[in-house]
Amino acid sequence: MVAIERGRLGLRRTVSGWKRAGARVGVVPTMGALHDGHLSLVRAARADADRVVVTLFVNPRQFNNPEDLAAYPRTEAADADLLAPLGVDLLYVPGGDEIYPPGFDTSVVVGGIDVGLEDAFRPGHFDGVALVVAKLLIQTAADRAYFGEKDFQQLMLVRRLVRDLDLPTGIVGCATVREPDGLALSSRNRRLAAGDRARAPALHAALAAAAGRLADGRPAAPVVDAARAAVLAAGWSSVEYLALRRASDLAPLDAATEPARLLAAAWLGGVRLIDNVAVRAG
Amino acid sequence: MVAIERGRLGLRRTVSGWKRAGARVGVVPTMGALHDGHLSLVRAARADADRVVVTLFVNPRQFNNPEDLAAYPRTEAADADLLAPLGVDLLYVPGGDEIYPPGFDTSVVVGGIDVGLEDAFRPGHFDGVALVVAKLLIQTAADRAYFGEKDFQQLMLVRRLVRDLDLPTGIVGCATVREPDGLALSSRNRRLAAGDRARAPALHAALAAAAGRLADGRPAAPVVDAARAAVLAAGWSSVEYLALRRASDLAPLDAATEPARLLAAAWLGGVRLIDNVAVRAG
Repeated sequence: MVAIERGRLGLRRTVSGWKRAGARVGVVPTMGALHDGHLSLVRAARADADRVVVTLFVNPRQFNNPEDLAAYPRTEAADADLLAPLGVDLLYVPGGDEIYPPGFDTSVVVGGIDVGLEDAFRPGHFDGVALVVAKLLIQTAADRAYFGEKDFQQLMLVRRLVRDLDLPTGIVGCATVREPDGLALSSRNRRLAAGDRARAPALHAALAAAAGRLADGRPAAPVVDAARAAVLAAGWSSVEYLALRRASDLAPLDAATEPARLLAAAWLGGVRLIDNVAVRAG
Repeated sequence: MVAIERGRLGLRRTVSGWKRAGARVGVVPTMGALHDGHLSLVRAARADADRVVVTLFVNPRQFNNPEDLAAYPRTEAADADLLAPLGVDLLYVPGGDEIYPPGFDTSVVVGGIDVGLEDAFRPGHFDGVALVVAKLLIQTAADRAYFGEKDFQQLMLVRRLVRDLDLPTGIVGCATVREPDGLALSSRNRRLAAGDRARAPALHAALAAAAGRLADGRPAAPVVDAARAAVLAAGWSSVEYLALRRASDLAPLDAATEPARLLAAAWLGGVRLIDNVAVRAG
């Protein structure tokens, strides 16, 4: 059993007690529908911090698409069961009013992430992410917070948010967890039809193959075009972006002449999935 | 002598040590050019908290007028001398890069304060205030922060900011300190020419007289018009606003039928001054 807290004041009281006792507090923010990717973040927190809080809040403000919000899986009981064996100290499941109380009217906007990736296809998404992450880090008063590299642009945004607002929380990026066939774990994977599930690994396969070819610093455009074609040939319905970017700030690159990242978003049978891989500099 | 800290990391180290020892930390954010109004905030902090930090930062982002920023008095040595007898534990004087480091690009915007007072005459001012207050409260990790009622709309904004971002800092509003003739203390008063200094009390006198008349709940418009005329008759060059507002949210009121505030901004010899007084409900 994991202890569940639904109120921000109760959360603060519990964490304050831990801190007075000298504990280092780690937090793993999630929207629930937990999978092994989340659990790997929890294990990282468990290994690193004295006390571990997992937050579960499906943040309406980061959904640019109401259908996506409505379809987002809510599985709190199953989530709590998954966390029970991992030594989580507290599962924080705030009601909507604990995050956005009546009269709430403040925005937090992180600049410099308008680089034409998720920001371009999910307008407003990162404003919602910045706001809720700022609030959750402040509410939990965490010393460390753990985020997956699968949401690479989000990880970058969170690092900037924490730096710009001087939040005393260290941000730990954790490697993407994948199925044996390469598909990056995502809460959205469970919405894939069986036939589409078989097609799903093509995205990572194309990214990984392209990353290998780009490592020698060759011109990126033909390699990127071939990767996009491979995804479509595998039966995906569209590719929103598939792009080589500088790892440090996601600026466009013509070749992997410095540490880089290959990032993609694509649609498979009505489900939007994202993935990314590192590209070693040539 | 007051200990001076110029770096946010040094500040955090010092405050962390105090907190580990169980101290309650109070902060008084200022832009320097200290006067008895600031010192009254420091005394309130000293009486209330175990450790007191005064911050001194002339925040460029809250000046909508570059001339006002350039003319703003910088008197750090005199400020430190004024604080020395008051038992201040730390004077935090961050350089610009400690607040806005290279690459800084985040905004914090508090809504619901576009009520046609300071917001209407100083575009962008409160965005700068919200940002720097959020940063200073987070940097200092203060348990309590002390703000003057003279900047009444700012005090309201800070309360909303703290509520909306869940900052663990209690906000304490402190009464306006006045010269014997009623002029509210302000760092801008020292820019008044001698002749204008003699005219300066007319603003508070008009507000106080009007507040007394409004306390019986009579229609506000003629009383407010008379107060504005009295300020102009005293030799002030213009009145930007002079308005009766609900105390809780600064919504316009036709009469003081609930707790209210009478607020004004006006120009005297090239200097913009503000003031406000409480109006008891009729």
